[in-house]
Amino acid sequence: MPDARFATLDDIRAALTGLPSPDAQALSGAQARNGQLTKPPGALGRLEDLAQWYASWRGDLRPRIERPQVAVFAGNHGVASLGVSAFPPEVTAQMVANFEAGGAAINQLARTFGATMTVTPLELDRPTADFTQGPAMSEDELCAAFSVGWDAVDPAADVLVPGEMGIANTTAASAVAAALYGGVGWVGAGTGVTGAALGRKAEVVAAGLERHRDALGDPLEVLRRLGGRELAAMAGAVLRARHLRVPVLLDGFICTAAASVLERAAPGALDHCAAGHVSAEAAHAALLERLNKRPLLSLGLRLGEGTGGALALGVLRGAVECHSGMATFAEAGVTDG
Amino acid sequence: MPDARFATLDDIRAALTGLPSPDAQALSGAQARNGQLTKPPGALGRLEDLAQWYASWRGDLRPRIERPQVAVFAGNHGVASLGVSAFPPEVTAQMVANFEAGGAAINQLARTFGATMTVTPLELDRPTADFTQGPAMSEDELCAAFSVGWDAVDPAADVLVPGEMGIANTTAASAVAAALYGGVGWVGAGTGVTGAALGRKAEVVAAGLERHRDALGDPLEVLRRLGGRELAAMAGAVLRARHLRVPVLLDGFICTAAASVLERAAPGALDHCAAGHVSAEAAHAALLERLNKRPLLSLGLRLGEGTGGALALGVLRGAVECHSGMATFAEAGVTDG
Repeated sequence: MPDARFATLDDIRAALTGLPSPDAQALSGAQARNGQLTKPPGALGRLEDLAQWYASWRGDLRPRIERPQVAVFAGNHGVASLGVSAFPPEVTAQMVANFEAGGAAINQLARTFGATMTVTPLELDRPTADFTQGPAMSEDELCAAFSVGWDAVDPAADVLVPGEMGIANTTAASAVAAALYGGVGWVGAGTGVTGAALGRKAEVVAAGLERHRDALGDPLEVLRRLGGRELAAMAGAVLRARHLRVPVLLDGFICTAAASVLERAAPGALDHCAAGHVSAEAAHAALLERLNKRPLLSLGLRLGEGTGGALALGVLRGAVECHSGMATFAEAGVTDG
Repeated sequence: MPDARFATLDDIRAALTGLPSPDAQALSGAQARNGQLTKPPGALGRLEDLAQWYASWRGDLRPRIERPQVAVFAGNHGVASLGVSAFPPEVTAQMVANFEAGGAAINQLARTFGATMTVTPLELDRPTADFTQGPAMSEDELCAAFSVGWDAVDPAADVLVPGEMGIANTTAASAVAAALYGGVGWVGAGTGVTGAALGRKAEVVAAGLERHRDALGDPLEVLRRLGGRELAAMAGAVLRARHLRVPVLLDGFICTAAASVLERAAPGALDHCAAGHVSAEAAHAALLERLNKRPLLSLGLRLGEGTGGALALGVLRGAVECHSGMATFAEAGVTDG
């Protein structure tokens, strides 16, 4: 797959076919190695599964993590003008400046766990359209944002943590999740809306679903009509990571909603992704259940930015270091029970 | 408190009085700082509580973690001869050699999260006595092991993760927990005993409780009669950390059982301890509930060595780095919703 940008939805559809699979030989080699390490069988619990999953995607039975990348994307939303957020839309650009200056939570976590961090603002002075009135993005706009995400992934990265910032983007994510999976319960407090504003948020999502109901059978149309540029960019980055065989740690509700578009368009498209955490936004747990992904962490985070994914990078690093760094029973001269 | 070693149980009792408290001024300063950081209120969930707890114990409203210590203690147990473990007792010394060579799981995790690691074997060629026949340790032996743990803590450490290795020590921990808290359900699979061996383990614990039933009202007598040297050393290390105002991340069932002796002897003695994880050993969850401590991680680990505590060190580091490293709304020029 060349570093193609995407001009049409059909270009994206083409990139969703022929996806690489995990390496069966690396997996069986990693499983065999795991059984020889100086610990009782299974005693490292989920760390063992995680390390083997990582090994299978890297095609290396004894991998190391050396270049994790946190890739943060920012976008603005037409629906922000409808009173769905606790913060005004200028906060998106202010937070981008904060990311660039190293002052946000995600900067601290990326540094703590040895990840490089890239920040990509997407036309912040040109919010998406209000999706209750029409599609959030044109096909060109969706493809441009998807391409930016695709191109933002460092081909030498060995883990990707996608993150986002965008005032009102839980509203977009709720609309996307509701459109992809149906049912209720997809609207929550986001950064902290309550009372009448929360009711307004639910109305906005319902109006968006109603406005676009005839087009919601196509996951990429869902992303174009109800999503936002940072959601499209995260989807592009996650798909690029798949082509590069770079494992992904998903962050919270918005990140997971964006990634879910790929899964709905091509079942199995998120097999290279683990759920970094489950956020306090209740819809996130529901979404992870639909994706059949069990979160690594549950610490009540509801910030986005990639913070939950970056925190889980610590767990993944620990898992891979144990797997690849431990002595075997034979090497250590320990009696295998 | 000088670096006293302990000669009698009464010496230990004395060290359990007049324990230092968290610093109220650092706590309120940390709370105020937390409210000014560039994130919605509460959006970092439990990371916020954790950072403030850490700040209060360090007496610093904006602390850093620079010298975490993983302190592993190893001991052998008379009850190992009763067929209660899936591994033979020589594995304890073999694993100590593995720790010293850097080949065990805890070595990898300590390195990953930037902790120094100390390993202290406690008279491995002299197992404790079989507690179904008499006390596991004399008063001298208990005090010596407790003192070793006390002295093992680096006074310059800023986090302590106690860990252990000792074939048959889940049997000792089950007996200690049952004696401290009563009730049933304290005996589990440990490193992997099943079937008849598991039944044997339950019988051994019951026999120990019966043998010492008249002395179990005193938590230090419980430790002496049913515990082991590595449990006593962990209790000594945790108490020393309290005197040094060094926060502790508890590991699994055995570590938590050892620490519980302090809490039963002096309620509040574990206020400087957080539960790093909840292990797959079911009794661990029950014990944490008695201690009113909610684990940071739940990943199915059941290895001991300090592995769950060390993995939680990643979470604590992330929490403290966010708290102390993030910009405030004023510093970043971000509009506070």
